[in-house]
Amino acid sequence: MKKYKVVFRPEGQVIDVFEGSTVMKAIKEAGVDFDFLCGGGKCGKCRVRIVEGSIKTHVEEKAFLGEKETSEGIHLACFTEIYSDIVVELLQAKAAQHQILLEAGERPMEIIPHICKKYIEVRKPSLDNHLSDWKRFRSSLFQGESQYTTMLETEIAVLHQLSKALRANQYHLTAVTYGHEVLGIEEQDTTQKLMGMAFDIGTTSIVGYLMDLHSGRELGVVSTVNPQTKFGADVITRMNYANQEEKGLERLHDAVTQAISKLIGEAVEKAGLSSDDIYVVTVAGNTCMHHLFLGLDPQYLSRSPYTATTSEPLILNAVKFPITMNPAGKILVLPNIAGFVGADTVAVLLATQMDQSEEIKLMIDIGTNGEIALGSKHKLFACSSAAGPAFEGAQISSGMRGATGAIDHVVFEEKLAYSVIGGGKPQGICGSGLLDVVAGLIEHGIVDKRGRFLPIEKITSAKAEGFKENIVQYEGMAAFLLADENTTLHGRPILVTQKDIRELQLAKGAMAAGIKVLVDKHGIAVEDIKEVLLAGAFGNYLNPHSACVIGLIPKALEGKIKMVGNAAGTGARLALLSSGEYKRGAAIAEFTQYVELASYPNFSSIFAESMYF
Amino acid sequence: MKKYKVVFRPEGQVIDVFEGSTVMKAIKEAGVDFDFLCGGGKCGKCRVRIVEGSIKTHVEEKAFLGEKETSEGIHLACFTEIYSDIVVELLQAKAAQHQILLEAGERPMEIIPHICKKYIEVRKPSLDNHLSDWKRFRSSLFQGESQYTTMLETEIAVLHQLSKALRANQYHLTAVTYGHEVLGIEEQDTTQKLMGMAFDIGTTSIVGYLMDLHSGRELGVVSTVNPQTKFGADVITRMNYANQEEKGLERLHDAVTQAISKLIGEAVEKAGLSSDDIYVVTVAGNTCMHHLFLGLDPQYLSRSPYTATTSEPLILNAVKFPITMNPAGKILVLPNIAGFVGADTVAVLLATQMDQSEEIKLMIDIGTNGEIALGSKHKLFACSSAAGPAFEGAQISSGMRGATGAIDHVVFEEKLAYSVIGGGKPQGICGSGLLDVVAGLIEHGIVDKRGRFLPIEKITSAKAEGFKENIVQYEGMAAFLLADENTTLHGRPILVTQKDIRELQLAKGAMAAGIKVLVDKHGIAVEDIKEVLLAGAFGNYLNPHSACVIGLIPKALEGKIKMVGNAAGTGARLALLSSGEYKRGAAIAEFTQYVELASYPNFSSIFAESMYF
Repeated sequence: MKKYKVVFRPEGQVIDVFEGSTVMKAIKEAGVDFDFLCGGGKCGKCRVRIVEGSIKTHVEEKAFLGEKETSEGIHLACFTEIYSDIVVELLQAKAAQHQILLEAGERPMEIIPHICKKYIEVRKPSLDNHLSDWKRFRSSLFQGESQYTTMLETEIAVLHQLSKALRANQYHLTAVTYGHEVLGIEEQDTTQKLMGMAFDIGTTSIVGYLMDLHSGRELGVVSTVNPQTKFGADVITRMNYANQEEKGLERLHDAVTQAISKLIGEAVEKAGLSSDDIYVVTVAGNTCMHHLFLGLDPQYLSRSPYTATTSEPLILNAVKFPITMNPAGKILVLPNIAGFVGADTVAVLLATQMDQSEEIKLMIDIGTNGEIALGSKHKLFACSSAAGPAFEGAQISSGMRGATGAIDHVVFEEKLAYSVIGGGKPQGICGSGLLDVVAGLIEHGIVDKRGRFLPIEKITSAKAEGFKENIVQYEGMAAFLLADENTTLHGRPILVTQKDIRELQLAKGAMAAGIKVLVDKHGIAVEDIKEVLLAGAFGNYLNPHSACVIGLIPKALEGKIKMVGNAAGTGARLALLSSGEYKRGAAIAEFTQYVELASYPNFSSIFAESMYF
Repeated sequence: MKKYKVVFRPEGQVIDVFEGSTVMKAIKEAGVDFDFLCGGGKCGKCRVRIVEGSIKTHVEEKAFLGEKETSEGIHLACFTEIYSDIVVELLQAKAAQHQILLEAGERPMEIIPHICKKYIEVRKPSLDNHLSDWKRFRSSLFQGESQYTTMLETEIAVLHQLSKALRANQYHLTAVTYGHEVLGIEEQDTTQKLMGMAFDIGTTSIVGYLMDLHSGRELGVVSTVNPQTKFGADVITRMNYANQEEKGLERLHDAVTQAISKLIGEAVEKAGLSSDDIYVVTVAGNTCMHHLFLGLDPQYLSRSPYTATTSEPLILNAVKFPITMNPAGKILVLPNIAGFVGADTVAVLLATQMDQSEEIKLMIDIGTNGEIALGSKHKLFACSSAAGPAFEGAQISSGMRGATGAIDHVVFEEKLAYSVIGGGKPQGICGSGLLDVVAGLIEHGIVDKRGRFLPIEKITSAKAEGFKENIVQYEGMAAFLLADENTTLHGRPILVTQKDIRELQLAKGAMAAGIKVLVDKHGIAVEDIKEVLLAGAFGNYLNPHSACVIGLIPKALEGKIKMVGNAAGTGARLALLSSGEYKRGAAIAEFTQYVELASYPNFSSIFAESMYF
């Protein structure tokens, strides 16, 4: 029987499998970290993208995939059979300790490198050609282009090497350029080595993408917990730490830059490269992450009127910045829109091309601080919604992050069913699980529109019958039992209490109110929105139906939801590969109108209304 | 009797004198270092410029001054009487130990500052104005100008200060800008403090001019012996030192940059300023000085084909260069024309505006390496002539530099008369003195056209009679005795020997041949030259008549000679005060065609011919 090679992206694992094997089987054999929540054939969560190769798939798959997904080559691993060498992109993947999104989300783009390399021959000097080494070098480099300039446009360090390097290499050199600026010279022909890394600096995780700047090929993905976490879990705590602790700012700055240097080291080592091969780094993060990365004091960002020191696009010289990369290189920091709508949102808008869309789209990035954008190429609005930590599982009685041991999805079928991240016994529930539970409770008439558990006797729906036994009393209030002490890892029950539902109401109310304000500001009806883009880790894990049931997303939009994965990382990669995309990012930050919710007319009553399910 | 205040430039000494006193008297009373070669009324050397105030002068003065000089306010100190408070510029002045030129050589120019300061008010942030501090700052700064840019155009260090500084100063700050780049911010209104220094780095001396960049006023002049002298007197020795000694290049580089930092310190201290007030530094020097200043290895400059590493205009950030000045400032290095025609020549051409002249002019800067330029705004040629050290007094039996104790001028009147730098007994003879002696010997028929002393019996001219007794035999050859052992400081006679005359012939021959080549290259006749500009220290001290008698300058041009003083320093000052002038300097370096003498057709026969007197 024939065997075929399967390559998994983004990590690059390779395995040979027999013809006709499913991708699921291949994934399991390769030992790739990937969840099959239902064991195969039921949940529709094992989405992969077939990048290359020939496959056969089942008709059942169609029930789970939208037309768009199908057109993008997305399939379910459990149904897909292998009939050639193939390249599979894992759209759901996770690191060992914490779950992050490494979805590659590609779209057509033109590579316009920020930094170029050219191997050139420089004319030899002679008594009849008295031109300086630099001038002859430059004229070989920019042949045919206008050359007269009053600026040298290089660093003196380059001049210190030039004359000797020319003579040692028979007047052949590789030039590294940034526009008309010569960043460096290298002996031999090194034009093939021109890499960069795009970073998405999240409050919780940092993800770095190693890219070949010539081909645009992704050479690897690395990630780590943001080491600033040890100084505070959220941005507010970190800003306070920076403001109040001695050397607080310095520590936070060092933590993130060191983490990035480490990720660069890790990525280049895996790819058989050196950190000197990294010439460009792009960085996207929220405004607080942006300030701490730059070593800027976030104290004015942390209090009204939440003013950033800078929001503009920034190009730094690597030589002066504490990151281990080629010192001749450049660090491009994407711009922010406002104090709480950062470069990560700009990167999402860039990746999703909302700024170029004729149709009106809604982008939601759910988190402790949720970002919402609404509009099209004609008008674009953005706001930040202080949803609070419920979506991250914090301040929830059995809550936890979306990490190993968390119940991340709950299904109210005949009986209650749930999936646990990493498999095994659960330890708690994360945001997406909580959403499923509350949505189920509403749909089964167990919790009312105002968020209250109904008394058992008032629960009349037939489909609620099977779940009544899960309704318990816990610390003097109603609660819904998900897993009793015998089925959990720590031997304590996992519940969703009345108070947890109140917390979720606050969080979803804040997001829903933000959406309402933007719709109002734009002067459109909800129905005018043609597509809802769910970005970010949480957005990619939640069940869109649950989000609509609880009213986090308007019900009218349920059929229009698309998950765009880690679009911030995609935006950072686009900006890395193309100076055109980077400039578009700058234009997006200028074009997008920030809406301050706190000062929006009647915001408190909009918020109060939005808390109803 | 009334008293008036006299201010002497450039050093700034002040003295009160009675009405009707001569400037000569004032100079002597003030103890200012200034030579009156003839004691007053005879030699016409005590040129000063009356910058302000009312004077009375003698008709005799006219015999010594050209029309141009008169129109420029130049007078002889010995004839000029004081009738109000006046400001006098000393056109001949000297430092205690070595004689350099501090002539101010002014010409009309427009001040276009490289770096500007502006005291601005920045809008306060509010909930309705979410723009970043940097964006509001920038919009106040560049009011009305287009603002959209994808570049931040500042250093991150500025951002590190910005937010706090704005709030500590009620949103008022002084911005330091370079085009659209923000170099720095300063608390309070510091717009009045914006100074710069122009440096002329000579092989022997370094002169620095402290200038107010707002008003263009000169605030002081400082100078020092180039400390590189201890590693070698001339450029060749220093290039060898850089190439052959361990850390040689580093030592030479450190010597000049430290000297410049020291001069800055000295200048600002005298003027009651701080080195932080220095925002711009311009530097002009020959190509070797240029390379050593930048720390560039001069080894390729020192051997055929004499290739510079860079000749182009260079703008450096002070923060990265080892000079003590405002770290936000810029260092502007003037461009070179070729390996041996450096930025000093560019500065001279800039100062004398030869590149804008409708008429053809000849510029001569005499030294060990003489530079010659010929042309107009239509065509401009330059060459370097290896004259050797005779003009500097080296390899001359009684030769010395133009320092204290040197015979610098010799007059063949009824008897032989000479002047000594610094007064007192002579120790030797410098280049200008040697020129006078040889010219006198030729004019009196003592030395023939081929440079040979005639036997006493063949000296027939009546006017030679009084000098026959000076013709002696010295070490087996003819010589001319200037001062016997009783009249010299060291008790040895001072002579000009047959061999000394041969050395001078080589030197003047090299210069004259250079002039001939440029005239030939330009395709003109000597008579087409409308003006001869003598630049540099030596050019300003020599007697133009003597230079024409020996054929250093074509005799046909004797009436057209103008001394332009330290025009290189003037050029550096122009480039400091005006970015327009700096750019013109760059254009001059591009426009001027370098002529390589060594490879010019028939050069050796042109050289041989040029040795005749």
